[in-house]
Amino acid sequence: MKNNTVAAISTPHGRGGVALIRISGDEAVTVAEKVFFPSSGKKLSELPTRYSAYGKIIKDGEAIDDGIAVIFRAPNSYTGEDVAEITCHGGILLASSVLEAVFTAGAEPARKGEFTKRAFLSGKLSLTEAEGVIDLIDAKSEEAIKLAKSHVDGVLSSKIDGLYGRMKDLLSQIYVYADYPDEDLTDVGPEEMKDILSGITGELEKLVSSYDLGRAVSEGIPTVICGKPNTGKSSVLNLILGRDRAIVSDIPGTTRDTLEETFPLGKVMLKLTDTAGIRSSDDEIEKIGVGRAKKAIAEAGLILAVFDVSEGLGKEDREVIELISASDAAKIAVLNKADLVCGEEAIEKIKNELPDIFDSAAVTSALNGKGLNVLEEKVNGIFNAGTIDYSLTPVLSSARQLAAVKRSREAVMNALKALEDGFTPDVAGTDVEIAMSELGQTDGRAVSSDIVDSIFHRFCVGK
Amino acid sequence: MKNNTVAAISTPHGRGGVALIRISGDEAVTVAEKVFFPSSGKKLSELPTRYSAYGKIIKDGEAIDDGIAVIFRAPNSYTGEDVAEITCHGGILLASSVLEAVFTAGAEPARKGEFTKRAFLSGKLSLTEAEGVIDLIDAKSEEAIKLAKSHVDGVLSSKIDGLYGRMKDLLSQIYVYADYPDEDLTDVGPEEMKDILSGITGELEKLVSSYDLGRAVSEGIPTVICGKPNTGKSSVLNLILGRDRAIVSDIPGTTRDTLEETFPLGKVMLKLTDTAGIRSSDDEIEKIGVGRAKKAIAEAGLILAVFDVSEGLGKEDREVIELISASDAAKIAVLNKADLVCGEEAIEKIKNELPDIFDSAAVTSALNGKGLNVLEEKVNGIFNAGTIDYSLTPVLSSARQLAAVKRSREAVMNALKALEDGFTPDVAGTDVEIAMSELGQTDGRAVSSDIVDSIFHRFCVGK
Repeated sequence: MKNNTVAAISTPHGRGGVALIRISGDEAVTVAEKVFFPSSGKKLSELPTRYSAYGKIIKDGEAIDDGIAVIFRAPNSYTGEDVAEITCHGGILLASSVLEAVFTAGAEPARKGEFTKRAFLSGKLSLTEAEGVIDLIDAKSEEAIKLAKSHVDGVLSSKIDGLYGRMKDLLSQIYVYADYPDEDLTDVGPEEMKDILSGITGELEKLVSSYDLGRAVSEGIPTVICGKPNTGKSSVLNLILGRDRAIVSDIPGTTRDTLEETFPLGKVMLKLTDTAGIRSSDDEIEKIGVGRAKKAIAEAGLILAVFDVSEGLGKEDREVIELISASDAAKIAVLNKADLVCGEEAIEKIKNELPDIFDSAAVTSALNGKGLNVLEEKVNGIFNAGTIDYSLTPVLSSARQLAAVKRSREAVMNALKALEDGFTPDVAGTDVEIAMSELGQTDGRAVSSDIVDSIFHRFCVGK
Repeated sequence: MKNNTVAAISTPHGRGGVALIRISGDEAVTVAEKVFFPSSGKKLSELPTRYSAYGKIIKDGEAIDDGIAVIFRAPNSYTGEDVAEITCHGGILLASSVLEAVFTAGAEPARKGEFTKRAFLSGKLSLTEAEGVIDLIDAKSEEAIKLAKSHVDGVLSSKIDGLYGRMKDLLSQIYVYADYPDEDLTDVGPEEMKDILSGITGELEKLVSSYDLGRAVSEGIPTVICGKPNTGKSSVLNLILGRDRAIVSDIPGTTRDTLEETFPLGKVMLKLTDTAGIRSSDDEIEKIGVGRAKKAIAEAGLILAVFDVSEGLGKEDREVIELISASDAAKIAVLNKADLVCGEEAIEKIKNELPDIFDSAAVTSALNGKGLNVLEEKVNGIFNAGTIDYSLTPVLSSARQLAAVKRSREAVMNALKALEDGFTPDVAGTDVEIAMSELGQTDGRAVSSDIVDSIFHRFCVGK
């Protein structure tokens, strides 16, 4: 297959010491040789692969910069194609000028993510590995880097690979059984098939559960701080924000803008949403605020319900508890203003009065900047952050992956049900095919031709 | 000399495909080996110099990314020291994490421009060549790239080198003559010395004049658009800006903000300043505006005086002409609203009435977007932009270089005067020494560490 040659500036846009122009495709070296002239007098293609040559960058017959060029030969390059990389000085116009020269020399502009897409198409990366690359670049915490790196390393990919293989094996057994139920071509009967499907369901279940952690570390957990008016919600917010931001304004609008950002509490990323104080009211504007709070609660993955321990639990607090009890988000009771009470008794009393909808409780004096460690520990505990070795445990980190795995799990469960309901294995086979197709979407393999190939490979014994 | 090892992210700050971490100093390879592990299993130092090795980047015992590492051995590197470069994925946090790992491994943070400063200190680059690097990075036009590239290539440096050598030769002749005036140790007598000094003065003069072009191309010319009210100054401004900016707001404040930028008219960079309409007035606010206009005119390198040809030259126009006549800036008469007059006569009449303080005149209908080409041609003509081959002709491009060359020229002229006034050559010798020292500041051979620091401070971190 002929791959057209594309090029782009691979370094961030801006002013810096150096910029890197990447060229990939069948003509990458030829294109680079029209722009870059090693000072040794040799051509790039005459130099050893992967050798960093110093030389001149020529545009319209004039040298516009000195730089370094390296060529990587297919398939041992990032994209799997021939790649040439030219490093020039990091000026905005200068790098664009070098890129223009590369276009004039015959390359086309690379589209967004095209180098990684080419790596995927040439089989260098699976889809989850490619997603890992983009997650690495976007990572906002050290933990997110580790998770993304595990994806780039193929931890998730090889898990999916394994499950896919098990489904494929099962499927061929099913079809052998379906075609020749009475011939002893397979030792897997319906009972064994059920066991295998149960095992696969369990594995898929584990992957689905892993998304709680993956989302917490990678995308961030939609988090709501709620409570009746005047329990110190803003102080709790400040307590969390405080480590990253010097100034948190008191002006409501300011805080609202700030809240659009995602930032870490320990190893967990929070997407914080502020809410109005919640209470029954006839005031129209307050009603709108409460309406918004309810909506935020419905969409939350984590609810921090703030109570004023110096006042004890009142009617309005109970309304808040009722409001959030319907949500299946993780819930932490934040027992705030602990500095205003003497002794542990008042706090213990509230703890005992709280219903068991809460996953845990954290005692804070947010206004005094106290309680962050406890809050961090509780939140990280709920999402298992920091307890898992990503290099060993596959973790889903995107909604796309989750959806595909869930659809696959559903199909596997349908297959299981079909067998349990006494249908013949070929009925279950259709569901397993669906399960494979759905799972295959996770890491992007071309599913249908794969199934066909493997089944005929097994069946071609003299038939 | 022992060079400590420093490191920085050399690519622009931001999100991109790749980021490059540069490490330079005696321990560069040792530091890189603690962070980067080639997938071949060999150590970086066991691989060939300049070989791009693929491998893992390790921080705190964990792989945080894959990447490419290359080592350059002293003196064949950018800094002239041992250099290791690690290319990782271009995430903001990720690149910082890799840099942190490099610091943990023993490198210190590189200061602004430190890599280029080390190149200067190790004799890889002269000061004008180093300034060329920063000008390349900051270049805002293709012409500025070409000029900066000539500096990086040492065109100015070798010119200064030649002049410095001629002064040094002369100085030794002077001292031989002074010590042994009657012995025939030198064939250079006072008359020949005068000839040599005249020749050097002429060369320095040429360099001083070149700054008009250098500034026009590189730094930009402080430019004032002035004229009595309602001649179409804003339209002329829009005419110039129009090519680069889709929207030029009518709100005065907006335009004022916009004007802080520098942008090109053909090959010349203009730093445009808007001015209030100029007229005698008792109105206090108008007086302030006119005062500002006068100040801008005093500091300008180019004045675009706008006249309304449909009205002819009036009293207020003559006041404007008087105001700008004292300035030694280049002056162009912009004969605007040419669409409102029939035939060439009115325009010719005004042209004839204009005093000879103007370098040239350009006819425009700015509101209709007409006349930009003429204006561009006139401006570029005045500053000789585009007529000079920078690879052959040395051009000063910074005020710092200009000042040093001017001081050198002054000292040479003092030497010449001393000889003409009949002083003995050793008196002139003192002035030649001063001239050498001043000229040496241009390319850094005789420069104080203070000046060196301030020059490299203009650089970004990582260059």
